Amino acid sequence: MIAVGVIGHGYWGPNLVRNFVEVPDVRVAWVADPRQDRLSAVAARYPSTKVTRNYRDVIDDPAVDAVVVATPVRTHFELGMAALQAGKHVLIEKPLAATSEEASRLLDEAERRRLVLMVDHTFVFTPAVQKMRELTERGELGEIQYYDSVRINLGLFQQDVNVLWDLSVHDLSIMDFVLERRPVAVSATGLAHVAGSPENIAYLTMFFDGTLIGHVHVNWLAPVKIRRTLLGGSRRMLVFDDLEASEKIKVYDRGISVVQSTDDLNLMRIGYRTGDMWAPQLPIHEALRAVADHFIASIRTSGVPVTDGRAGLRIVRLLEAATESMAKRGRPVQIGAAARV
Amino acid sequence: MIAVGVIGHGYWGPNLVRNFVEVPDVRVAWVADPRQDRLSAVAARYPSTKVTRNYRDVIDDPAVDAVVVATPVRTHFELGMAALQAGKHVLIEKPLAATSEEASRLLDEAERRRLVLMVDHTFVFTPAVQKMRELTERGELGEIQYYDSVRINLGLFQQDVNVLWDLSVHDLSIMDFVLERRPVAVSATGLAHVAGSPENIAYLTMFFDGTLIGHVHVNWLAPVKIRRTLLGGSRRMLVFDDLEASEKIKVYDRGISVVQSTDDLNLMRIGYRTGDMWAPQLPIHEALRAVADHFIASIRTSGVPVTDGRAGLRIVRLLEAATESMAKRGRPVQIGAAARV
Amino acid sequence: MIAVGVIGHGYWGPNLVRNFVEVPDVRVAWVADPRQDRLSAVAARYPSTKVTRNYRDVIDDPAVDAVVVATPVRTHFELGMAALQAGKHVLIEKPLAATSEEASRLLDEAERRRLVLMVDHTFVFTPAVQKMRELTERGELGEIQYYDSVRINLGLFQQDVNVLWDLSVHDLSIMDFVLERRPVAVSATGLAHVAGSPENIAYLTMFFDGTLIGHVHVNWLAPVKIRRTLLGGSRRMLVFDDLEASEKIKVYDRGISVVQSTDDLNLMRIGYRTGDMWAPQLPIHEALRAVADHFIASIRTSGVPVTDGRAGLRIVRLLEAATESMAKRGRPVQIGAAARV
Amino acid sequence: MIAVGVIGHGYWGPNLVRNFVEVPDVRVAWVADPRQDRLSAVAARYPSTKVTRNYRDVIDDPAVDAVVVATPVRTHFELGMAALQAGKHVLIEKPLAATSEEASRLLDEAERRRLVLMVDHTFVFTPAVQKMRELTERGELGEIQYYDSVRINLGLFQQDVNVLWDLSVHDLSIMDFVLERRPVAVSATGLAHVAGSPENIAYLTMFFDGTLIGHVHVNWLAPVKIRRTLLGGSRRMLVFDDLEASEKIKVYDRGISVVQSTDDLNLMRIGYRTGDMWAPQLPIHEALRAVADHFIASIRTSGVPVTDGRAGLRIVRLLEAATESMAKRGRPVQIGAAARV
Repeated sequence: MIAVGVIGHGYWGPNLVRNFVEVPDVRVAWVADPRQDRLSAVAARYPSTKVTRNYRDVIDDPAVDAVVVATPVRTHFELGMAALQAGKHVLIEKPLAATSEEASRLLDEAERRRLVLMVDHTFVFTPAVQKMRELTERGELGEIQYYDSVRINLGLFQQDVNVLWDLSVHDLSIMDFVLERRPVAVSATGLAHVAGSPENIAYLTMFFDGTLIGHVHVNWLAPVKIRRTLLGGSRRMLVFDDLEASEKIKVYDRGISVVQSTDDLNLMRIGYRTGDMWAPQLPIHEALRAVADHFIASIRTSGVPVTDGRAGLRIVRLLEAATESMAKRGRPVQIGAAARV
Repeated sequence: MIAVGVIGHGYWGPNLVRNFVEVPDVRVAWVADPRQDRLSAVAARYPSTKVTRNYRDVIDDPAVDAVVVATPVRTHFELGMAALQAGKHVLIEKPLAATSEEASRLLDEAERRRLVLMVDHTFVFTPAVQKMRELTERGELGEIQYYDSVRINLGLFQQDVNVLWDLSVHDLSIMDFVLERRPVAVSATGLAHVAGSPENIAYLTMFFDGTLIGHVHVNWLAPVKIRRTLLGGSRRMLVFDDLEASEKIKVYDRGISVVQSTDDLNLMRIGYRTGDMWAPQLPIHEALRAVADHFIASIRTSGVPVTDGRAGLRIVRLLEAATESMAKRGRPVQIGAAARV
Repeated sequence: MIAVGVIGHGYWGPNLVRNFVEVPDVRVAWVADPRQDRLSAVAARYPSTKVTRNYRDVIDDPAVDAVVVATPVRTHFELGMAALQAGKHVLIEKPLAATSEEASRLLDEAERRRLVLMVDHTFVFTPAVQKMRELTERGELGEIQYYDSVRINLGLFQQDVNVLWDLSVHDLSIMDFVLERRPVAVSATGLAHVAGSPENIAYLTMFFDGTLIGHVHVNWLAPVKIRRTLLGGSRRMLVFDDLEASEKIKVYDRGISVVQSTDDLNLMRIGYRTGDMWAPQLPIHEALRAVADHFIASIRTSGVPVTDGRAGLRIVRLLEAATESMAKRGRPVQIGAAARV
Repeated sequence: MIAVGVIGHGYWGPNLVRNFVEVPDVRVAWVADPRQDRLSAVAARYPSTKVTRNYRDVIDDPAVDAVVVATPVRTHFELGMAALQAGKHVLIEKPLAATSEEASRLLDEAERRRLVLMVDHTFVFTPAVQKMRELTERGELGEIQYYDSVRINLGLFQQDVNVLWDLSVHDLSIMDFVLERRPVAVSATGLAHVAGSPENIAYLTMFFDGTLIGHVHVNWLAPVKIRRTLLGGSRRMLVFDDLEASEKIKVYDRGISVVQSTDDLNLMRIGYRTGDMWAPQLPIHEALRAVADHFIASIRTSGVPVTDGRAGLRIVRLLEAATESMAKRGRPVQIGAAARV
């Protein structure tokens, strides 16, 4: 039986608790949150779970094996580090930390202590993204040429982080998992429409070696909700629309072929190929449950999670670079080779 | 009776001829094109129109009042200038010229000779864009906060200009007309997937004074066709989907309001407003016919076309700046104040 | 404090319990169900609610004021009658009973004892249907000309009732509420694709006095899920698409006008009117909560519920007539004037 | 060289002329129409085609090999019969004639004279319907269980025939071609919303031997345009949406399986199967061109057209039966065995 303590029971915490409760041979020993009303709700629903307003109660409890941190980003480092130092395995909400410096130190601490450090990049565990990875790995799409994502809606404006840190982190983690390639530079642009608040609309381009480009549009101020990702490959192209009830993934047998002109050797002719479309049936399960299962399995087998601290650090470095570029109206920011590993 | 000569009868020329033929008191006197098969088609369909493989026949004919140039971009300057110097009014396909230098010289020549110089920014004449302008001007949308457009499909790759010059020119001309504000800087990113060809995927951000931002995604290598523009305003937000059969324009009574917190004067709270959606009925007419009518009317009244040489020049300058920025992976390029007028 | 007992905790029962629990000054005193595992779930979640496998425990408890029946249709009569005879107010799942004879007797018993008898026609309490009623009542749509609904998906096949009794009951209750007119005859067709099972695909036409017609297509064996209703009026037409996340209701300012020809007095010319489309913002609340509130309010005020026993009886009579017609391949079945009141 | 004469140049005639002109070794010798303005348009566009207001000029011209009749339904018989009696092959717009009596006589005349008689059931020649037939024939869908079609929009009201004769004829001809089975009875309902005009909304059910049912909803008074057909099979189900730009046909690997319960031999359990969706790429060609090619090829090879007089007669008989049933509010009308051949 693995005992889990959850720190933070705001927007995402209740989902984490609900899922961990259902993992076999796992118990949610503690929930910590500064607000009493939230703790009362937990107590009513999960009578065997202890609640506290002081997160140290969770970390100091020797019966606790693992700690889940679901608090605002600026507190991830302090809480995560305290938990690691107390010898606990740690799962932290995305993004892993507020700076790459903090993320690095968490990573080092976990490695030194041989503890599991996992970041909750939930999308990586969705059936749709798993299918994207499978198709990409098997070569069904050919060489990947671009990743283009639009992730926009009205709300929820955040006070402490810009929209890139809130929304683009989903795409960065999907790309990190599906493409298995690391950007060498980023260029970002954006704007804050509320004075004194962080940017609420942003555009992020990622450059890679070779002919791969990534782009993400994130926006808290859009009249319509869109969650649509294009993955362009040399053999096939894929559209992932997360708002589709079924058929979230559509694979198009479309593309171009470059033909040397027979008349003029210097001239290339582009041929267009338009074939069938195919929407694979996806398994139906809650991604967060898979996150919980994977975290627990990593603890049990001393394995490295798919979304480990290194993945978390890579994403934080990209977010830092993007924020820096955005402040300079798109001036590209290089990602050092070290930062890519 | 105004006599029009059309130079270039490839993809767009036939549409121009078909529309000018129907303008009252206008006759299409000449069609010039290097390919004989195209000329034969014209001769069969319009027996009273003369055809020639030599464009000088059109320009040298004293009976011709106006010349329409529908040839590849690199030839716009030479043909347009020759026509102006022969004293003809000129309508040129978008973009106006291959460089801002060329565009400027066309503009100067037309002004010096008091001839009409118009660029065929067709989208400006669509009922949907006219409605966008009307709603914006009347203040129905409040202060405009962003323009975001996705204009992607599979094909047609062009050999001599990148995808910005082909597709984003539509959005640049729509913004120029609807917003009546000029960008102060641009940042663009993009990639060519075919070696030796221009960029086929590109992202362009436009910065303005104040809290307005513009962005365009153009792509010749997309599995699906998308033509969707968001226009975010402080009062209402609008979606223009050009692929909708009806309801191309949807106006959403949605947005945010910023409320000073009563508890903490330093804290702002964002309120979200979600109201009705409204799709105004649009008149049904072919935009290109309106282009033809407007060109002829400008000649008759010695008026300045809405899409005059200055508008054409502004767009070419943006395309140049965007291409320069794209070569530098998004490094922002300033647009001089002179270039904005 | 009103004490409610819920009999039946299968598919719909848990939703009823969850909603009644939240109504102020109401407590769910009992839940009865033959399956122990369901009762255990209730006990865990609602410690203060008593559970039993014997529904008589609920009905015989003098502390119980009202009984909610959420069991298979064939048992509605027996349970509802027992509850009424024990002096309880009763809310019964749709359809009210398995035959109009049973429904009539429930109705009589409730009236004799001055008890509230309500049927859970949930759709009547959705914001979308409330809006349809409001627009119809205010004359915004003009004279209603037709109601056309498609309600299809894959599953869930039922063993004891045909697809009309399962799915079309939603439309019959919406029509009953929105149109406030009663069909004078019905014609239905349908088929069973599984030998020995009831019809899984059915088409039902309802005839009214004057120029109003209703039609419903219900189907358990469709590859796609569709929930779309057209409400045609002489002034405007409405589309209700229940699968739309927002904009469930769209009102089209479209229609025809009949013009006497000036040339030929015997000839009519039809003019077509195409105007704006408008999607009113709908309030967001759970319909079932409104059902619970309305049932409790009816008890407190001795009021007649909107979906009272008479409404339940009218719908059951239509279902009986439709089933009879369907067995005769569409032969129309009259609805007696008495049955319409 | 086959000489074709076209009688009727209103809505559909110009499309027929345009397509026949392009068939190799075919010339359009004549166009007849009572309106002079239409004939002038033909003369301008096709200088080598003779025009006349008197259809007898076409029929009496010994140089004419084949006559195409594109006039109002009530004139099909007279014109078609005259052409056949003059020894011409005949192609007639759908529906073949105004009554089955007329259709029979046309059929007999053509057979007696060994002339080609074809009806222009255009939809049969669309790539989408050809694909439906191919998939059905190959058994990809299993046993067909139902055909369900919605074909609605605003306009165009017709004065002489009801909406079934105008719109459902498309579905009847598709079913005739794809299913290769003949209905044994029909039941139809409908209503006229304009006094003195034929029915503008109608619902038609077709009964077959075994577990196949067909249904069509046609409507001239709908706020939205819908062209969607479901074809349910025991192995797979298909959706044909003619308004989709691409992906008109989607094949769903979905359905049910009936499992005998192991607990109770009298009880069946339904299992649901949900698999991939697949949208085959369809060739792009104009269906009417295929109609023209097929008519000419039938003449050249003395072949029997796919949509021959018998097919035309079958559809007219169904329309007559449906109209009879509609007048009786759905009372089923049997289709005699003779009428089905």
